[in-house]
Amino acid sequence: MGQQIFKGNIIFAPTPEELKICAKSYIVVKNGMVEGIYERLPEEYGEEPVKDYGERLILPGFVDLHVHASQFDQRGLGLDRGLIDWLNDYTFSTESRFSDPAYAWEAYSIFADELIRQGTVRTCIFATIHKESTGLLFEILQEKGIGAFVGKVNMDRNCPDFLKEKTEISIKETEELIAQYGRHPLVKPILTPRFAPTSSEELLKAIGELAKKYNLPVQSHLSENPSEVKWVRELFPSHPTYSDVYLDFGLFGHAPALMAHGIYLTDRELELIKANDVMLVHCPESNINLVSGIMPVRKWLHHGIRVGLGSDVGASHTLAMSKAIVRAIQLSKLMKVFDPHAKPLTKPLTTAEAFYMATKGGGSFFGKVGSFEKGYSFDAIIVEDDPRITGRLSLEEQFQRFLYTGDARNIIARFVEGRQVG
Amino acid sequence: MGQQIFKGNIIFAPTPEELKICAKSYIVVKNGMVEGIYERLPEEYGEEPVKDYGERLILPGFVDLHVHASQFDQRGLGLDRGLIDWLNDYTFSTESRFSDPAYAWEAYSIFADELIRQGTVRTCIFATIHKESTGLLFEILQEKGIGAFVGKVNMDRNCPDFLKEKTEISIKETEELIAQYGRHPLVKPILTPRFAPTSSEELLKAIGELAKKYNLPVQSHLSENPSEVKWVRELFPSHPTYSDVYLDFGLFGHAPALMAHGIYLTDRELELIKANDVMLVHCPESNINLVSGIMPVRKWLHHGIRVGLGSDVGASHTLAMSKAIVRAIQLSKLMKVFDPHAKPLTKPLTTAEAFYMATKGGGSFFGKVGSFEKGYSFDAIIVEDDPRITGRLSLEEQFQRFLYTGDARNIIARFVEGRQVG
Repeated sequence: MGQQIFKGNIIFAPTPEELKICAKSYIVVKNGMVEGIYERLPEEYGEEPVKDYGERLILPGFVDLHVHASQFDQRGLGLDRGLIDWLNDYTFSTESRFSDPAYAWEAYSIFADELIRQGTVRTCIFATIHKESTGLLFEILQEKGIGAFVGKVNMDRNCPDFLKEKTEISIKETEELIAQYGRHPLVKPILTPRFAPTSSEELLKAIGELAKKYNLPVQSHLSENPSEVKWVRELFPSHPTYSDVYLDFGLFGHAPALMAHGIYLTDRELELIKANDVMLVHCPESNINLVSGIMPVRKWLHHGIRVGLGSDVGASHTLAMSKAIVRAIQLSKLMKVFDPHAKPLTKPLTTAEAFYMATKGGGSFFGKVGSFEKGYSFDAIIVEDDPRITGRLSLEEQFQRFLYTGDARNIIARFVEGRQVG
Repeated sequence: MGQQIFKGNIIFAPTPEELKICAKSYIVVKNGMVEGIYERLPEEYGEEPVKDYGERLILPGFVDLHVHASQFDQRGLGLDRGLIDWLNDYTFSTESRFSDPAYAWEAYSIFADELIRQGTVRTCIFATIHKESTGLLFEILQEKGIGAFVGKVNMDRNCPDFLKEKTEISIKETEELIAQYGRHPLVKPILTPRFAPTSSEELLKAIGELAKKYNLPVQSHLSENPSEVKWVRELFPSHPTYSDVYLDFGLFGHAPALMAHGIYLTDRELELIKANDVMLVHCPESNINLVSGIMPVRKWLHHGIRVGLGSDVGASHTLAMSKAIVRAIQLSKLMKVFDPHAKPLTKPLTTAEAFYMATKGGGSFFGKVGSFEKGYSFDAIIVEDDPRITGRLSLEEQFQRFLYTGDARNIIARFVEGRQVG
């Protein structure tokens, strides 16, 4: 692809503590990777064409570490119900429709377009149990050009019969998808047991073996609400904690692992998660819609645990990671309200910290992604706003305004490894 | 205006417990007031023209009971700061710009257009201390055609000098505005001491007398956060509670009163509020952005207190009352998470209950507003969505989908007393 030069107001978070703002600066990209940021373009690039975005903001594209592609259509529906009715009335019946590849092709195409429109350029996705439609999702994302880990869901117990797999077929089809889609540079397979309660011990064991055999990452759910935690203790009585189940069957430790939610964790689990470099995914909107609770993010960060952000559509009603950032900040403020004496462990997240989680923090699951430091993939979104308003605001305020009041209409271009994808 | 007939999928909440859904029905409006809803149009109307909205939803327009018009421009800015820095760095400096009528005209016009675009048709507004620009706000709203109570803010202590009024001038200018704008049928004055801490006893007393003299409603802030409550106790040591201050100076009881927030209330205050029929305004987005807390809505409702909804822009970042409804539901779910043993007083709000608060509940402050029962003002919004999606959903699901995932672009028309305003 060679060399590209972009100009604009560049903002990114190289650390959770720092929002780096480079006003009217040049960013040089070589073969899709950032070479450097310059206030004045060095002479060696003097003759090169520059894509000048003027007053617009150049931000790292968003990373959504947890989303159910099949649930996109049910956003916002039935949220007065409790979790179990919501699963039965909406989630499971929606997922069953993905046995039809034609339906899956249409639904996944709409999902992918909306994901990109919202500025998400890297994502970790739960598909459904269905091999053929999951294959279509790989192909759609390859064609759209964004980065993704895509997981065929494995589930062989404690679910409706129409979504229950035979253990050996679940594993066989998972391996077939790995064989078919395992070599693409941007869209890759990830092992995806739904969660411990819908997995037999045989299934978990076999998935752990696949992780080792193919050196594949793993994603699942962990400790989303208290009754789920209790259920896991009943289903796996010989395991001291929920996390021990995943550890014991080889899902922690062999390969990178991503666990959605992680709200109710014991000290032992925090140690296991840290020792095995498991990344937790905070999904604030989902956690309030489903009455799950609030992840004590500050406390987990204090323990040295890596935390990224996820939309968790459909339990959340929006794919916009800007909204996940705002909601993460808001929930961290509520932690302080409810436990004002636990300072500094309830200090609210700053905007920079939450933005870091949705860019470089989550991006680390993909490699050098989510920042504009040298060597990082040029994954970016270009943001514009009404110049009559932004003219009165500092660049940091324009950035805050986009996160809080902006939406997909403010994003005028999206890039992955230097290639424009929307 | 005579008679109008509209047709569509009509949805409203005549009580907090009931979402009334009238599929493909006719609503007959006489002189701006609802006459009746009919599945088949009675013969007497057989010859009349019908405005047919097809598959679209006809909902009561939204009522926003608490918004600072002057703070519209600062939405989403500086929310990492604590309350005091946020007030000084943003709110007070923004408000000071309204000493310039030309600035006020432009800013209030943009505000009013956005309010209407978002489907709000009745609202209670804080302007600033500035008489002339507050007068312009009255005129802008009259011209736009929505219903509003508009308050010139009174403030004579504990604020920056550039916003501090002399007590007698504050009262004099308030009376002048009442004389000038007191006779409009839709846009009316409301007495608006900012809150107890920025009011001298003389000011509060004089405002109480104005309420009595002109039979005018009152709005202010009450018990938004614990340090404010403590401050009021220090400033008014002879009053047993915050609410007693307002009661003692005649702001409760003489005329309808609206109090924003009301999060931290003693049993005595609940009794005073109920006995004086004071309406509380729940502003969920603001309360989390400013780390104020969560109003225990279910508990207040259980005590028989009237609760409406407010956006509280600029502490909230959006005027969309659909988002205030969703946030109110979400915060009520978090109350349950944090106090799961207090059933039934932490039962989450249903969608119908929160929608009622933003329509008929808050609308009661304006009279027969916010419902489509006979005799109610025809204040309505028309909502459309992608028919490829809504075709698969029930009307209740379409309604939920609009609240959770929709925005102003889904609203294609707005009516106040039968007149289209946007």
